[in-house]
Order: sequence, then C-alpha cells, then structure tokens
Amino acid sequence: MKTTKYVLTEKDMPRRWYNIMADMPTPAEPALHPGTGQPAGPEDFAPIFPMNLIEQEVSTERWIDIPDEVLQKLAIWRPSPLFRAHALEKALGTPAKIFYKNEGVSPAGSHKPNTAIAQAYYNKVAGTKKIITETGAGQWGSALAMSCAFFGIECKVYMVKISYNHKPYRRLMMQTWGADCTASPSNETESGRSILAKDPDCPGSLGMAISEAVEVAVQDETSKYALGSVLNHVMIHQSIIGLEAQKQMEMAGAYPDVIIGSAGGGSNFAGLAFPFALDKINGKDIDIIAVEPTSCPTMTRGPFAYDFGDTVQKTPMLAMHTLGHNFVPEPIHAGGLRYHGMAPLVSQLILDKIIRPEAVPQIETFKAGITFAKSEGYISAPECNHAIAMTIREALKAKEEGKEKTILFNWSGHGLVDLAAYDSFFQGELSDHELPQEQIDAALKDIESFPKPKQAT
Amino acid sequence: MKTTKYVLTEKDMPRRWYNIMADMPTPAEPALHPGTGQPAGPEDFAPIFPMNLIEQEVSTERWIDIPDEVLQKLAIWRPSPLFRAHALEKALGTPAKIFYKNEGVSPAGSHKPNTAIAQAYYNKVAGTKKIITETGAGQWGSALAMSCAFFGIECKVYMVKISYNHKPYRRLMMQTWGADCTASPSNETESGRSILAKDPDCPGSLGMAISEAVEVAVQDETSKYALGSVLNHVMIHQSIIGLEAQKQMEMAGAYPDVIIGSAGGGSNFAGLAFPFALDKINGKDIDIIAVEPTSCPTMTRGPFAYDFGDTVQKTPMLAMHTLGHNFVPEPIHAGGLRYHGMAPLVSQLILDKIIRPEAVPQIETFKAGITFAKSEGYISAPECNHAIAMTIREALKAKEEGKEKTILFNWSGHGLVDLAAYDSFFQGELSDHELPQEQIDAALKDIESFPKPKQAT
Repeated sequence: MKTTKYVLTEKDMPRRWYNIMADMPTPAEPALHPGTGQPAGPEDFAPIFPMNLIEQEVSTERWIDIPDEVLQKLAIWRPSPLFRAHALEKALGTPAKIFYKNEGVSPAGSHKPNTAIAQAYYNKVAGTKKIITETGAGQWGSALAMSCAFFGIECKVYMVKISYNHKPYRRLMMQTWGADCTASPSNETESGRSILAKDPDCPGSLGMAISEAVEVAVQDETSKYALGSVLNHVMIHQSIIGLEAQKQMEMAGAYPDVIIGSAGGGSNFAGLAFPFALDKINGKDIDIIAVEPTSCPTMTRGPFAYDFGDTVQKTPMLAMHTLGHNFVPEPIHAGGLRYHGMAPLVSQLILDKIIRPEAVPQIETFKAGITFAKSEGYISAPECNHAIAMTIREALKAKEEGKEKTILFNWSGHGLVDLAAYDSFFQGELSDHELPQEQIDAALKDIESFPKPKQAT
Repeated sequence: MKTTKYVLTEKDMPRRWYNIMADMPTPAEPALHPGTGQPAGPEDFAPIFPMNLIEQEVSTERWIDIPDEVLQKLAIWRPSPLFRAHALEKALGTPAKIFYKNEGVSPAGSHKPNTAIAQAYYNKVAGTKKIITETGAGQWGSALAMSCAFFGIECKVYMVKISYNHKPYRRLMMQTWGADCTASPSNETESGRSILAKDPDCPGSLGMAISEAVEVAVQDETSKYALGSVLNHVMIHQSIIGLEAQKQMEMAGAYPDVIIGSAGGGSNFAGLAFPFALDKINGKDIDIIAVEPTSCPTMTRGPFAYDFGDTVQKTPMLAMHTLGHNFVPEPIHAGGLRYHGMAPLVSQLILDKIIRPEAVPQIETFKAGITFAKSEGYISAPECNHAIAMTIREALKAKEEGKEKTILFNWSGHGLVDLAAYDSFFQGELSDHELPQEQIDAALKDIESFPKPKQAT
C-alpha cells in the first residue's frame, strides 16, 4: 500500500513559531501613522491591539515560543496531516509528486484558527473582555468566534451585509460558538448609522465593517480589535503550517521543488511558505508561488506602495502591493481573495524575488477544484481552488517536460459552507472577468499623493 | 500538556472487519421474501446487490479481510482520531473521562464513506457500471457519490424532494463528485410518475425514493442498488470504527465503562459498539447505549417484528424493532434518525440485553451540541447530538454519584451542511414532539398480519 498521509502526533508539534522578519533580505518598511504619515510606534496600535501582540508585530526574533495554553487548543486538530495526492497525480498522468497540507481539519474548516486561537489567548492574558472584528466571507469571523468561546472572551463580528444574507451557514457557525454577529452597516455604530442614513439598502463592504469594528473596539479599554490576515503577527502564528510540513516532507523522504498557496491577505500562503523561504534565502532552489485571482491581481498588477488597510483610511498605512484601498473587485466567489492589499512581508519578499506571484482566472479554479474532489475526495474552498489550479498547471508542465518534480501546496480549507459558489459554476453563471487597466489606474489615483516606500514600484 | 488526540498511522489500520454474526448469543433471524414470506435466499437479493456483497450479508465468518483497494481509499481519512474531551469534561465538572471517535474527518463529513467505499469497490469488482440509491438527509447519497467517483462508477441518487429543496448543499456535494441527483418523486420512473399523477406537489419520502431507485436498478444487469445502513454488510464495514477505537483506548490506557452512539438505521452505532460488544458477550461489564429521538422511538417503543424496509413493501422483510413501515415521524431535524426500523443485528442484541436503548428529546440534543461546540470546537450533525446528549447525561450522573467512569461515544459527523437545523433551534421553532401511543398503535396495525419472528415482542 502507498502512504497517503504523513501524520505527526501532538508531541511532535512545533513549540516555537518562525518569524521571517529575522531573515528578510531587505527589512520590511515601517507602518505609518494614518494622521501624521510618520512611522507608527507601538503606542499608536495600543487602542486596538493588546501590547503582547503589538510586540510580536514588530519583533525581529527568529523564534517565538508558543504558549502551552495555545498548543493545548491547537492540539484539537494539529498537527494537521500532510497528504500525498496519489489519485490526483494519476488523474493528471503527471510524473510530478504532489503533496498537500490539509488545513481543513480544524473545527472551523480552515487555517484561520491558527492565529485566532493565539490572538484570543494573548488578549485573554492582557485582560481583554471582548474582541470585535469584521468578516467578509466568514472564515475569519467563525474562527475567532470559536477561539473566543475557548477562552471565555465575548466576541462581536460585523459581517458584510451581502455575505450575512448570502452565507447564513457561516453566520450560524458564529452563533453556535456564542458570538454576536451583526450585518454591517448596522445601526449600532456612528459609522454604520451615517452610511445607512445615506443609503438604507447599502450592501456593505469590508472597509465599512472594519470601521464599525474599530469604532466599537476603541470605546472601552477592555475591548480590542482583531485582524485575521495581512499583519506580521498573523504570519508568525501561521508559520506552524510550514514548520509541521517540513517535518512531514522529511518523513516522506522528499523536499519540494515548488511551493504553492493561494493569497488574499497572504496568511495561509505565508504560513506554509515562510519556513521554506528561509531555505531559499539560504540558497536552496525552490519556486515559491503565491496565487491570486485575475480579477483582484494585487501582486501581479498592483504597485508596491504605502496604502491604508481599510477604505475609510483609519488604519496605519502599510508598505505593500496594493490596487488602492478604493479598488472594488468583481464579485467573484472566493471572498477571501478579494482584498485590495497584500501582507507587507509577502510583498517585500516578492520584491526580493523569494516569492513569485501568479494570477489564475475563476473558471479554471473551479474546474481544478472539481478534478481534485473527484480524485482526492475533499471539496475545497473557492480560495483554495486557486492553489489547486496552479498545482495542476505545474504538474502538467512537468508531464510535458517529462520531468520529475515535487510540488507542495497548502489546502487551506474545505468548501462545504461555500457550495453556493459551486452552484453558480454549475449553473454557468461565472465568468473570468477581464480587468481593464483603466479600472486599476483609477483606483491607484487615490493613493498617488501618499508617502512612498524606498522600493516603490 | 494533556493528550487530546490518540492517532494511529495508516500502517495501524485494521486489515479485517469484524462480523458480530459469528458471536451473537442468539443468531439473527433470516430475512423473508416479500412475496412468499419464506426465508429469502441469496438469489432473491441478486437483482439489486452484487453477489460478493450478498455473501457478506449472510456470512457468519468472524473476520473478513478488507481488500487493499478499499484500505487505500479509506486511508484518505482513516484511521480517524480518538479524542479525549478535556474541555467538555471541565465544562461539565464531571469526574468522568470522556472519549470520542471523530468520524467527521472524512471528505463527506460522516462515517458513511466507510461502507460506501466498500460497496463501490465490490460493485466495481462484480462489473457494476452504475449504482442507484436514495437519500434522505443526504449523508449517504454524498458518501456514495464520492465513492463512485473514486472507482469510476456512474452514480444516481434519488433525493427526497423536500430535502432536495431544503438542503441544496448536500445536493451540490453529490454534483461536485459527479453524481446525478434527482428530486424524488420524479418523472424518470413508473413509480415516480404514478405518485406525481395523484399528487403533482408531493414532497416525497424515503419509501418513495427507494421505490424509484430499486425500479431503475433492476432494469439493467450492470446496474445495482445500494443501501447505507440497516443491513448486515453495512454493519460489517462500519466495524473498522470500533476496531480502531480499541487500539486507541489502549494507547490512552483506558477501557470504556459506557459506549454511546446515535442510532437511526444503526450503522454508526454498530460500527463503534460491535467490537466492544464481543467483550461484553464474553463477560465484560460495559453499558452499551443506542440513542434515538423520542419522536421516532423505534427501539424504546417499537416491538421486535417482521416488517418491510420500505413503505411500498418491495424489500425483503427483516426481523427488527419497528414502528411499522407506514409510521411517519414528526419532521425533526435529525433526518438520519427518522427511519421506522432498526438494523436486525442491533435489534437482536437489544433482546439479548447486550445493548440498551434510550430515547432523548430534540431540544436537549441541540443544547448538548452547543455545549460541545463551545468546549470541544466541533459543530456536530443533529444526529450526532443525540449521542452527545446521552454522554452528558451519563457524565452528570457520574458527577452526582461522585464516581469515576470512562465514556466513549461515536462523533459520527459534523453539522456544517446541517446548520439550518441549528437556525431553527435558535429561532425557537423546535419542540420536543410528545408522541401519542395511538399514533404508534395505528402504524403497527399495518404489520399485525405479518409473519412473526421467534422472539417477537
């Protein structure tokens, strides 16, 4: 019998997170204060994040101990299994060896709890009684709702109204874990009320939901805000994926020539890729591919610039690949990949040629997901289908070239609560949305006057 | 750190299924031919099942080898992890040790693929080109759809129309795996058309869907029918759950005083319980509890009698606990527990006092599921919540009595595609449905004239 899964026990769980900030060929540029445009200090983040997380955000320590309380909760599903995709390889007739890390085994169904657990824990230690966040597709909101339940913290989620209405199952997951989930814009906040006054039927946006969440978080010292991607401390928490995968690839007697992850804010991609990226920084030949949709091509068509994380310009400015904070992508179904920006650490490593970005069109991703489901069994989240599509491209290239090659990708989560997207595909309602350059140029106009990072492109 | 999961590798997978028919204190009574009322022979099953599965159905061999091709596919998620429910124990303040076997890690999200894979394989070997089945809640239909995709067999599912409309995500899972899923009653069959002629808006029933599936299956020699529970060969395939759990309990240095599983047709319960039941038959003191809903109390209020598996009286008659094939339970949300009968092997072992049946009301099960989700993280299928409710009762009894006790239950599947049921609970739309004795008596009138098993009650 061929080995399908490489399984570690809880005793083999990494005890330290990896922080790539210690090893960046070019150090990341500092966040800027939204008001002054000057480098932001820890005190600028203090109203919204607890100090222990702010310290991680700016840390350049290579290894950061994972607290026992966090490990104990991660052990509910970690270490996650590493799979060899024998059936997919056979279906493709490829000489490539395909491995994938299965992050869908978490109770919330994705990699998001890796950081949600950690953030809930650090907030608990810092005395936070309530965490407020926003969610678009619902993966992050549900992961945080569960994590808050574990640590006895109140959880409030502002969910983009159109998702709230279209994705009742995600909302119900949050409710089951005891979180209070409100459609945004809501009547509960100043910003919500002002938006509704102008447009009572407003469908909401991630930017609006962030405004509501931050507004509520700063009202009370024991309330904090939490973010599920983009920031450095999130990338640190996700590194456990790649650290486990390194041990598992060793068990399999293999090392990846190609590493692939889908990238919206960058966290699942970075989680798998950064520990391997260290090997690349140290000279190893690995092709590390971050995959985005052609309809929201932050990395492949957006410049490296300072920009806000939200549409209302309240967050610090980050140096990153961005399409401009006012860029509104077509309503593709991979909600987790619709963000205008990219994690600063991922962006910087693209500039340094450690990471190679690629964009894939929507229809190809669903076809890839269905090929995967029929061979490997698991039904993937639409976000994750982007990684699969790129994996299939690489595997077919290997077949064409008659080359053996080892591919490792991050299967970031299952799609069982996202099946409406598959329905749209089956119904022929999806298209590939060619994105005109004028639309990008128009959105980028709004950030022209911002301070420029040293390596601006 | 406390151990949360007891994990086996693929190499530790059981290589043989356990067949309790070799060890029954009282042998199971034979199935009867629907026309003659005489014991049915293998040839009576041949039009609908392949001969290799019929042989298993009547086998009294204690151990049956699991084919390598089946093991290779089971390895996609097996061995499934055994969990120690530390957080649930803490939430309940119980001295009891609670363990659960997590069958929700399969790609279809439940234990059903354990037999679906095996059935698809044996059909493949026997030359079957197409498998036709029915599904109510959709767990079985989706598991079979996936398994047929693995072995390149065409799959057709008749899904009870009201579920088809209310559970689009289950239908979409089947579609993603390539199965053809039709709302039943349909215009595709004689029986479907005759039902629709009388009632064009008929919402369908499991009995009607079975009629359609069987009608299509017998039309072609290379088409077969498949059933996801009740029958002996299904119980055999599911025994892998308990065989793995025995090894894992040994790893944990514990042995269960109480074993709990929810029981609709009986397959997830039997899967966990039967290997342990052998120890009980051999003298070990274990309380083995099969849990059903009070609204469909097959085991606790139904007699042991010969009855049909379907409403149209086309299947062989089985000796089992039954509420009568015309019994229609209230529309509770645990669709998998709404069956009028119970697996003959489970029924027989109840008579022999190896298994103890219990019924729990609906509201208690949802409350139990939410307690579980907030402590252990996983959101359970409504069926599975019945096992959790009974586990909590036993754990609280242990607390009251100040007794240490080890409880093991089967977490048969997650509820992520069943969240509409949780919504009904949150909305206060659910009730406990007291079932009047007259309703049971009325349904049982229809089977009064049937042949009686020796141990009829």
